[in-house]
Amino acid sequence: MEIKQPYLLFLGDVPDALAAKTATGIVDWRKDWCAGQLRLPGCAADTGLPDLSIDEAKKQGVKTMIVGAVNAGGKLPEHWITSVIEALEAGFDVATGLHVRLSSIPAIKEAAEKNGCKLFDVRFNDISFETGKGTKRSGKRILAVGTDCSVGKKYTALAMDKAMNDRGYKSSFCATGQTGVFISGRGVALDAVIADFISGAAEWISPAVDDDQWQIIEGQGSLFHPSFAGVTLGLLHGSQPDGFIVCHEPTRKTMRGVPAKLPTIQQVIDLTVQCGSLTNPDIRCVGIAVNTSALEEGEAKAYLAKLSEEHGGLPATDPVRFGMENIVDQVATEFGAP
Amino acid sequence: MEIKQPYLLFLGDVPDALAAKTATGIVDWRKDWCAGQLRLPGCAADTGLPDLSIDEAKKQGVKTMIVGAVNAGGKLPEHWITSVIEALEAGFDVATGLHVRLSSIPAIKEAAEKNGCKLFDVRFNDISFETGKGTKRSGKRILAVGTDCSVGKKYTALAMDKAMNDRGYKSSFCATGQTGVFISGRGVALDAVIADFISGAAEWISPAVDDDQWQIIEGQGSLFHPSFAGVTLGLLHGSQPDGFIVCHEPTRKTMRGVPAKLPTIQQVIDLTVQCGSLTNPDIRCVGIAVNTSALEEGEAKAYLAKLSEEHGGLPATDPVRFGMENIVDQVATEFGAP
Repeated sequence: MEIKQPYLLFLGDVPDALAAKTATGIVDWRKDWCAGQLRLPGCAADTGLPDLSIDEAKKQGVKTMIVGAVNAGGKLPEHWITSVIEALEAGFDVATGLHVRLSSIPAIKEAAEKNGCKLFDVRFNDISFETGKGTKRSGKRILAVGTDCSVGKKYTALAMDKAMNDRGYKSSFCATGQTGVFISGRGVALDAVIADFISGAAEWISPAVDDDQWQIIEGQGSLFHPSFAGVTLGLLHGSQPDGFIVCHEPTRKTMRGVPAKLPTIQQVIDLTVQCGSLTNPDIRCVGIAVNTSALEEGEAKAYLAKLSEEHGGLPATDPVRFGMENIVDQVATEFGAP
Repeated sequence: MEIKQPYLLFLGDVPDALAAKTATGIVDWRKDWCAGQLRLPGCAADTGLPDLSIDEAKKQGVKTMIVGAVNAGGKLPEHWITSVIEALEAGFDVATGLHVRLSSIPAIKEAAEKNGCKLFDVRFNDISFETGKGTKRSGKRILAVGTDCSVGKKYTALAMDKAMNDRGYKSSFCATGQTGVFISGRGVALDAVIADFISGAAEWISPAVDDDQWQIIEGQGSLFHPSFAGVTLGLLHGSQPDGFIVCHEPTRKTMRGVPAKLPTIQQVIDLTVQCGSLTNPDIRCVGIAVNTSALEEGEAKAYLAKLSEEHGGLPATDPVRFGMENIVDQVATEFGAP
């Protein structure tokens, strides 16, 4: 699954900005890949990119239209189908993360075939993976893990990848969720893989690379989430990370979507080391990434300093507010300069 | 997925007994459900059931023909398709655990529709599961876990279910693998479920029951197997077992199919308690089940006594050789008499 750039981001006519968060995420991290946005009348979302018609997008060399918004239910409404077909008629590939396959809609399938265009449904997976092997691969890997779902693992991995590259490391981001796939142009929505192949898919996502290459892998779920821990464990085993970053959201009262208690950061560190050592005995925590948006800046700094002290001096940061420099420092200390 | 009895077991013309191990497993545990076997010329397997033609099976009231054998590659050879169609013409449902869907073969699909018969592909799953909830359900549950794959978890769960019923407990077996589904007439091959729904499927497999009901749940994989631990963890969380039995094969040198080291029984107990307490804080180990077939009877008894001593007096047995009585005793001690 290799999605060609530049992208045209389709926002439809969604009623608020949150419904277009896939598009926003792409613009946050890969603005250079995006030629513009296509909005229908009444659209309340705005990525800040120039509004382009299909014709204008074609003139600018767009290769793929990404449906970067969801409507209620994850379906594709009738009037969005019209836009998808116009994009295919212009020769663009089309990619979505919706719950319905583009190819299951006859008019779309036909237009794609007629125009020789590809359809990407990143929520589905047509790759035949092997089962995980568990043997050591060349290259170095960092995995984002979390005390819960939706605590900033994708953002942390992307910020870490950028900070590593800025520091002179050879680093790439490995996507395991749908927005991440659009941001990297490659990858697999791991939660959509058949259970037997979770760790095998994770091995495919972060394949062997040169020894000085780093892969920063987007995390999924939490080892302590009763709905999704199986995915998290398979990802941990398949990723065989050398280092991991624990992501945390301090205002969360219970695990997302279920009434379970949140684990402590230390519990996450301990269980990740214990389970992760199965495929990488040298696994270690390299930092803590916290969403401190509920705190004033001074409070946030004090909180992070306290976290660091409580966890044996591990660097703690808010990736949005304070960057990843201290965690890259930790990587340099533990694994050497670039 | 509710498969109707009685069964006719189709063995095809497989070249050895091992290729018919699904059929053998069904006969071992549910001989009463099986009217007979159907073998093609040259078949080298034999379940010991009477050989029946389709016509004879029909007279005996057969409801479902189970393809209880696999040929190389898990495909359905042309001459087996003929038998499947004859079974459908006789009005039988047909069930397989092959890698190909029966309904993907046009002649089979047509015959099923024409005769109003059901096709069961237990290696595929068409149920829409919820994601796991992790909340406590009524009833009591025992899960078989293992130091590795293929160490007797299904056999142990079936033997435990039988021993519990013999002792007067209300017990049922919950299948999580394909042979198990044929043996219980219900269930899901858990390794074929989409990753996001592993624990949700496990919750579906062992739903809420009366408080005096026990569910004995077939295990899958191992928390220490780098290929399949994600499935094992999702099953553990979704099963929320009150008790678990550790299954072990002492001659195994490395984890099945991969060069990883085998964990100790104590490591399996510790990690199962640690992870399992997320959805059942009262989880505990109730026994150890070992395949001692490589040892003389006296050696086997001495080995089991030593294991019991090393693990705080937990009962250890070989389910095939010595039965499950001592583990049922442990359940009675821990949870009360029936």
